[in-house]
Amino acid sequence: MDMLDIIRSKKKNIPLSKKEIEFVIQGYVNGTIPDYQMSALLMAICFNGMNYKELLNLTIAIIDSGDVMDLSKINAVTVDKHSTGGVGDKTTLIIAPIVAALGGHVAKMSGKGLGHTGGTVDKLESIEGFRTNLSEREFFNQVKKIGVALISQTGNLTPADKKIYALRDVTATVDSIPLIASSVMSKKIAAGSDCILLDVKVGSGAFMKDIKEATELAEKMIQIGKGAGRKVVALITNMEEPLGKNIGNSLEVKEAIEILNGKGPEDLREVSIEIASYMLMMCTEKNLDEIREEVIKCIDSGKALERFKEMVRLQGGNEDYISNPELFPKAKYEDYVYADYAGYISKMDTETIGIVSGKLGVGREKKEDEIDYTAGIILNKKTGDYVEKGEILATLYSSKFSDMEELKENFKEAIEIQKEKLDNLNKSKVLKVLK
Amino acid sequence: MDMLDIIRSKKKNIPLSKKEIEFVIQGYVNGTIPDYQMSALLMAICFNGMNYKELLNLTIAIIDSGDVMDLSKINAVTVDKHSTGGVGDKTTLIIAPIVAALGGHVAKMSGKGLGHTGGTVDKLESIEGFRTNLSEREFFNQVKKIGVALISQTGNLTPADKKIYALRDVTATVDSIPLIASSVMSKKIAAGSDCILLDVKVGSGAFMKDIKEATELAEKMIQIGKGAGRKVVALITNMEEPLGKNIGNSLEVKEAIEILNGKGPEDLREVSIEIASYMLMMCTEKNLDEIREEVIKCIDSGKALERFKEMVRLQGGNEDYISNPELFPKAKYEDYVYADYAGYISKMDTETIGIVSGKLGVGREKKEDEIDYTAGIILNKKTGDYVEKGEILATLYSSKFSDMEELKENFKEAIEIQKEKLDNLNKSKVLKVLK
Repeated sequence: MDMLDIIRSKKKNIPLSKKEIEFVIQGYVNGTIPDYQMSALLMAICFNGMNYKELLNLTIAIIDSGDVMDLSKINAVTVDKHSTGGVGDKTTLIIAPIVAALGGHVAKMSGKGLGHTGGTVDKLESIEGFRTNLSEREFFNQVKKIGVALISQTGNLTPADKKIYALRDVTATVDSIPLIASSVMSKKIAAGSDCILLDVKVGSGAFMKDIKEATELAEKMIQIGKGAGRKVVALITNMEEPLGKNIGNSLEVKEAIEILNGKGPEDLREVSIEIASYMLMMCTEKNLDEIREEVIKCIDSGKALERFKEMVRLQGGNEDYISNPELFPKAKYEDYVYADYAGYISKMDTETIGIVSGKLGVGREKKEDEIDYTAGIILNKKTGDYVEKGEILATLYSSKFSDMEELKENFKEAIEIQKEKLDNLNKSKVLKVLK
Repeated sequence: MDMLDIIRSKKKNIPLSKKEIEFVIQGYVNGTIPDYQMSALLMAICFNGMNYKELLNLTIAIIDSGDVMDLSKINAVTVDKHSTGGVGDKTTLIIAPIVAALGGHVAKMSGKGLGHTGGTVDKLESIEGFRTNLSEREFFNQVKKIGVALISQTGNLTPADKKIYALRDVTATVDSIPLIASSVMSKKIAAGSDCILLDVKVGSGAFMKDIKEATELAEKMIQIGKGAGRKVVALITNMEEPLGKNIGNSLEVKEAIEILNGKGPEDLREVSIEIASYMLMMCTEKNLDEIREEVIKCIDSGKALERFKEMVRLQGGNEDYISNPELFPKAKYEDYVYADYAGYISKMDTETIGIVSGKLGVGREKKEDEIDYTAGIILNKKTGDYVEKGEILATLYSSKFSDMEELKENFKEAIEIQKEKLDNLNKSKVLKVLK
């Protein structure tokens, strides 16, 4: 078999065989296929796509490049969740304890964030003492005991995906639906859960800019998951403004606690309830409306918050932080963004807000970078809200930068204010459910 | 400027600016842009193409990466010729002395062959003593004196093209019309001639498989040449069978001598006359019909052969080889391919015949490989000819391989024999002229 012929086939839109795909993935991981050939193939895939068979074979070849988690020791139906990413998306922190409190089993591994925002692991590590590096035994035991454990990636899962993603990142081949679908699903399938809830974000702050693209991605991921014997549901949720009001690691944990206390922003509560309900629907086979009621009760009764505290305690975190979020260290510097005009907020450019939060120190550009857990943004207003001239739009936090003048200007450029009230606001909500 | 943004633009089909193209070429040559990014960009160009401005800017950037020949010392209008390649194409050896004998100036640099067949330089070097490595002074003086010198590449012309071509070769990005056009034209423009005759081959034995593609390539090359201030004419000639009857380095020189003796195969004579005529038309501004008559006279009177001998003598070659081609060393081994059926030859798969000749030792796979000047094929029959069962179709020559059984079988597979005589034969001829 010859890599040149394989690139040529994909360029001519001839589907690749299982053997060809295995040859590519194995060869790339073991170094016999050089980066420059792989990037040419990836670019050809960006143009010509992949059919269902190719996608499934690619995903399986990526899974086979590394270890696969065997969650059978948990002796229960396990359920995982993946979001294609957005700004202010702290739903994992909320839904995991809810699902566990209602009898589900969430044995979830998350990555560290790379880019503007921190990952779930970074958020959790902003809680004093919280350990995400549990041993496999601790991990299984905790899930058996309380139905939930959130840890960082363990073992050598999907090394092919890591190597391919690093190359895609520097060759402008990230935004390809088949490549995104196989990357996400290889990680989720290797992580071992029986059921997978996919939260596909669409809008200005997401990878997928329109609902057609988002639907295509969701359908492809569902096909792959089913092909690999998993139960999959995909929600398409919009991301035309940040989810909730807090962006930043400890700020997002604080907002998750608010939701678990039955408070917090409506959009975040709504989306979290939907995600948790569909996850429970998959692993319990109960009726959705019934589950949704249980989820709401679980939040409002404080049961979910109790489960969250239990998880924090078992993973070595300081539980007092959850009871009293004022204990989270505060950023050294804070500054306010004021409105230049009065009016209704008609648009918040989520991507720009993400970049501003990244510059404040929320994320990391390189793996080695240290994260600032205190950094971030609290939005005082969201789309549809009325703002007076001179009123606070948002507060910026950082422990690294005292001078935020430029970032404040950048933030302002992301906000549109109109005289008239708008009816059709794209508030964050579930737009579509695919099974 | 950022290579990632440039790849992204080309992927989205946004034309690249002059500055972006210069950034790419300079960065790739000096090593700041890695192969894997360049190959991603090249693949995106294969899909989205390049507009006229991009093509011209790319060609100029490639030219600017190295030296440019200054032929002004020759003090005459110079004319060059390029063929996009084929099997048995020895026209340069024929047209160069004709054009010189009729007052033109051919200061021509050629490459060594890479692939199935040798290049013009390899063919000439099969003549005992022939030097293709003239100094610049010798080169200019000879062109001034006799109107022609054929040498190997001198100076550091278009290093960017060399580096890019090597990458295209291993990333399946060779067959892109804009990349071929800019590669060919950068070399021709850097080589310094005022007029450029392009012989664009079309058919089973050529890069361009149909006349539409060939026309597109020709038009793009003409646009680039004119944009760089050169006079350009393109002939589209077909290559559905090898040109002439001889394939192989010294075998092709012998056939060129036949043509210059007023003999040899009709197709080769015809195509050579056309090429020489258009070259002279460009540098003399005379009427084409008038020139064509002069060209025919120049061949039949022996004047062109005399000029060829003069060139061989001045470049250190043994002139006796030209007067008496029997002096060329013979291959150690020869073997015959016989017809299995009687009938008319309806098709000769040129690419397969090229591959067989390559395996006999005509070309080189790697730069370092030594060429077998004696190796090759002499066709006894061409398309349209009648052949008896058991009659010789061709003779294979090699000094390396005594056992040619497999190659004979391969050769036979390239030949189609039919009972009925065919009217519409694709004999090699000029199909189209573009200016």
